[in-house]
Amino acid sequence: MYLTNKAKLKIIPLGGLNEIGKNMTVFEYGNDIIVVDCGLAFPDDEMLGIDLVIPDISYLLKNKDKVKAIVLTHGHEDHIGALPYVLKQLNLPIYGTRLTLGLVENKLKEYGLLRDSKLITVKPKETVKIGQFKIEFIRTTHSIADSVALAIHTPVGVIFHSGDFKIDYTPIAGEVADFHRFAELGAQGVLVMLCDSTNIERPGYTMSERTVGETFDNLFRKAEQRIIVATFASNIHRVQQIIDSAHKFGRKVAISGRSMINVVNVAKELGYLDIPADILIDLDEANKLSFDKVVIITTGSQGEPMSALTRMASSEHKKVEIVPGDTVIISASAIPGNEKFISRVINQLFKKGAEVIYDTLADVHVSGHACQEEIKLLHTLIKPRFFIPVHGEYRHLKQHAHLAESLGMDPKNIFIADNGTVLEFTKSSGRITGTVTAGKVLVDGLGVGDVGNIVLRDRKHLSQDGLFVVVVTISKEKRSIIAGPDIISRGFVYVRESEDLIEEAKNLVRKTLSQCEKDDICEWTSIKTMIKDCLSSLLYEKTKRNPMILPIIMEI
Amino acid sequence: MYLTNKAKLKIIPLGGLNEIGKNMTVFEYGNDIIVVDCGLAFPDDEMLGIDLVIPDISYLLKNKDKVKAIVLTHGHEDHIGALPYVLKQLNLPIYGTRLTLGLVENKLKEYGLLRDSKLITVKPKETVKIGQFKIEFIRTTHSIADSVALAIHTPVGVIFHSGDFKIDYTPIAGEVADFHRFAELGAQGVLVMLCDSTNIERPGYTMSERTVGETFDNLFRKAEQRIIVATFASNIHRVQQIIDSAHKFGRKVAISGRSMINVVNVAKELGYLDIPADILIDLDEANKLSFDKVVIITTGSQGEPMSALTRMASSEHKKVEIVPGDTVIISASAIPGNEKFISRVINQLFKKGAEVIYDTLADVHVSGHACQEEIKLLHTLIKPRFFIPVHGEYRHLKQHAHLAESLGMDPKNIFIADNGTVLEFTKSSGRITGTVTAGKVLVDGLGVGDVGNIVLRDRKHLSQDGLFVVVVTISKEKRSIIAGPDIISRGFVYVRESEDLIEEAKNLVRKTLSQCEKDDICEWTSIKTMIKDCLSSLLYEKTKRNPMILPIIMEI
Repeated sequence: MYLTNKAKLKIIPLGGLNEIGKNMTVFEYGNDIIVVDCGLAFPDDEMLGIDLVIPDISYLLKNKDKVKAIVLTHGHEDHIGALPYVLKQLNLPIYGTRLTLGLVENKLKEYGLLRDSKLITVKPKETVKIGQFKIEFIRTTHSIADSVALAIHTPVGVIFHSGDFKIDYTPIAGEVADFHRFAELGAQGVLVMLCDSTNIERPGYTMSERTVGETFDNLFRKAEQRIIVATFASNIHRVQQIIDSAHKFGRKVAISGRSMINVVNVAKELGYLDIPADILIDLDEANKLSFDKVVIITTGSQGEPMSALTRMASSEHKKVEIVPGDTVIISASAIPGNEKFISRVINQLFKKGAEVIYDTLADVHVSGHACQEEIKLLHTLIKPRFFIPVHGEYRHLKQHAHLAESLGMDPKNIFIADNGTVLEFTKSSGRITGTVTAGKVLVDGLGVGDVGNIVLRDRKHLSQDGLFVVVVTISKEKRSIIAGPDIISRGFVYVRESEDLIEEAKNLVRKTLSQCEKDDICEWTSIKTMIKDCLSSLLYEKTKRNPMILPIIMEI
Repeated sequence: MYLTNKAKLKIIPLGGLNEIGKNMTVFEYGNDIIVVDCGLAFPDDEMLGIDLVIPDISYLLKNKDKVKAIVLTHGHEDHIGALPYVLKQLNLPIYGTRLTLGLVENKLKEYGLLRDSKLITVKPKETVKIGQFKIEFIRTTHSIADSVALAIHTPVGVIFHSGDFKIDYTPIAGEVADFHRFAELGAQGVLVMLCDSTNIERPGYTMSERTVGETFDNLFRKAEQRIIVATFASNIHRVQQIIDSAHKFGRKVAISGRSMINVVNVAKELGYLDIPADILIDLDEANKLSFDKVVIITTGSQGEPMSALTRMASSEHKKVEIVPGDTVIISASAIPGNEKFISRVINQLFKKGAEVIYDTLADVHVSGHACQEEIKLLHTLIKPRFFIPVHGEYRHLKQHAHLAESLGMDPKNIFIADNGTVLEFTKSSGRITGTVTAGKVLVDGLGVGDVGNIVLRDRKHLSQDGLFVVVVTISKEKRSIIAGPDIISRGFVYVRESEDLIEEAKNLVRKTLSQCEKDDICEWTSIKTMIKDCLSSLLYEKTKRNPMILPIIMEI
């Protein structure tokens, strides 16, 4: 369908469009393909039992020989989390900045994939040549250190990919975004821009990360006992600011939660955290110190059921017991879907007598994504000829298109695409030319892609009204009941209080079977369907519930 | 335990504390009990398959003879929704204002309970005597018309219950709250105040309902085609404003969604909606008109899966098909937990080419609850001696206690209570003296309270990893396998792709059974446990999943 045409550049998003997460974009020119980012998404509420979601990479597997590399913009899970799954099928060199690859290394080690992988560290301002592409890494600011945007120099022109970004004029421990290079690229001419849409609905500006540090200082000054701060493990700058405030007020710092310990170790080793000597202690030491000398940095800012903060709140943490006088700061805002988890943790912490500070009460969090005015700045500097809004649900892509139009862009040059959409660009034209396979691959335990709609539909059904199993053993010759019917139900009713209903169900099954015998119905499928139907009516009539009914007939 | 003490007033919350919803409070003096509000709550995410949650009224049933009446503050579901369930067990007279009882009537009719019920309409400023209580109804403003606060005059003093409220100086089609009576009560002396805590975390003031009308006017002025507005059915004032704007711009109005139709009918009959002649049409007529002459008011502002707006968005509505040019206004904000549903509907509407306006883009909604400055006004006017924050999770009750303290209240006079807490007051003292049974009763279909923790735990288990049933028929004498083992799985793996695993499982069961035979293990429970354990290990090893395993042994 899509024949190689040397004069055309293809851009094919495989994830991150019409969704939040699992970002992945394909850039293809002639016999060269590069993949930008390789992220995972967290399952929707309907994806019962699913651990995580990764992009469908059928297109890459079909074009195995063309794919030259994966290029990463930063180290968040929605940009690197699918790597272990993709690398098992496609062993590709991976390009990224130091911290990004430090986090990738950690992840690949866990999956036993590090030895075979090829990680190539690049620095902002550096350009690498991969096939006919020249990839230029450009510093941006985001809620993780070492984030970059990409200028992808291709034979048809320059493609600018913003990555995730915000405009922070006073970032922590790092430089501001490379505005001069953005301006220079814009002046020279950018053919296509792909730009982050996450916060497109928010007017104004995202505040600087530094403002959170000021809040920490104020809170630390007032706190008389222990301070516990929960935040995203990957937000090194936030962790740095907590450590800075702790140092300022003469407190030691202990780290809690596996991912927080991992990330702090990687960041420390690579020099992304500036940690005063002797300030870090472990939780056992922290318990021996006077509590007014202690800060604990922990995971669990989203109220995740197994996280360290949640375990502290429910008295299940082995080393940290919340006591009256503790100040707990939740330095994050809720990712949609997590509101109730967080609320529960806040309630539990309050009940234990802690003072809890969260984003509705104080400025303990800022977003990592650009709001409208920042996005306008980027559009204005880059002034691309064509524009593809990325990283967002349809509503965000649509609003981002609106914003681009309001800045004077021709609507014909804006493409609201979907995962799998093929966009083709020449030096002077751009259009959507087709689609390739793209979608969600569900990961459940060891299974990658083996849980499909039928399995999910069954889980949903079972979750709503439970299960009603009928087993009966029947003689092959006479077709009469030899044993049973036995009934087992789970998640339907409390059996001891429903003995009459169970008895009625058994009688109904007996009646149905003897009817089948009389009518000489002997096809199993028909008999099962009849049992299912009559039980379904009975149970719905008596309970207004629809459990999954499983008739099992053993023949001897 | 709690002997009647004539000198003491008991206040016992049975719902609405440490939760949002199912509001119900008991006031008891001597042989008289009155119940204020009788609401339902919507199930948490973990309450799989549950339809709704009502308060446990064991305490009322135990004191049946004392309970004299139910008094309602307003007609929202979280204040009246449990009535059909409670009235089946306790046939009590119900006091409320006209619109409140109009909605109650509607509800009782649906449940076939209207004929036997006794509804007594009261007006704001009216006082009714019930046993030793005098209940005074005082006008407030809220997101439903005809809301009242209560001054409960008791032998030990006046109890003030705010109900749900906000301070709206320019309410729609009604009077402002009765500030003068609040002030008078405060001047004369209020013993205890119970006050709404819903918006306690929000600084400042909630905007007037009227501001939404201004936004409607602006949006209606710009809209060139059809306008569809989704809002809460019970928000009569919002509906009034939509009709007013429609009238102003020469549009007809059609109503969609069962609860919207019901509420509009009740409100119209009782005179709570001022509807210009001939403006209301049905959906069929609306489809025949030029779309620039049409407004549709619909349910579905929370993206509820079966609601009218959701069906329109997914092309499943019989009479309304969304087309490019439609303006859809979602005049509501997300109730926590509904964010993703709403987002999905917004995305679908945008994809169909509609212009979608929601609360992040324009001022199309205001809350019905008071923010901090309004709550301070009420505290200042009422200046109660004792204070019980109500209607909120623990975090809200705690913040409300903070606010009361900041206004100069003695912390000893503030009670953060729980459902079931017994608070006793004399003319000069107040204290917590014990607890009574209180809690959540889950309603699932026809079952009220028959779904407990075991059933929910099973539903949860089934929802995560599905089900794995093993059936085998065994000879009673020889204990050898006669038929089977057969395996049925649902929601676990896609069976056709897992034939090897199923075969391996069958072999394992055969092996285990013959081992049992050899070892002369013949107790069914032991055999079943052995089968469960060996299968569980196998399945976890192969899939890292833990389906529910049900071994069924038939004996002949």
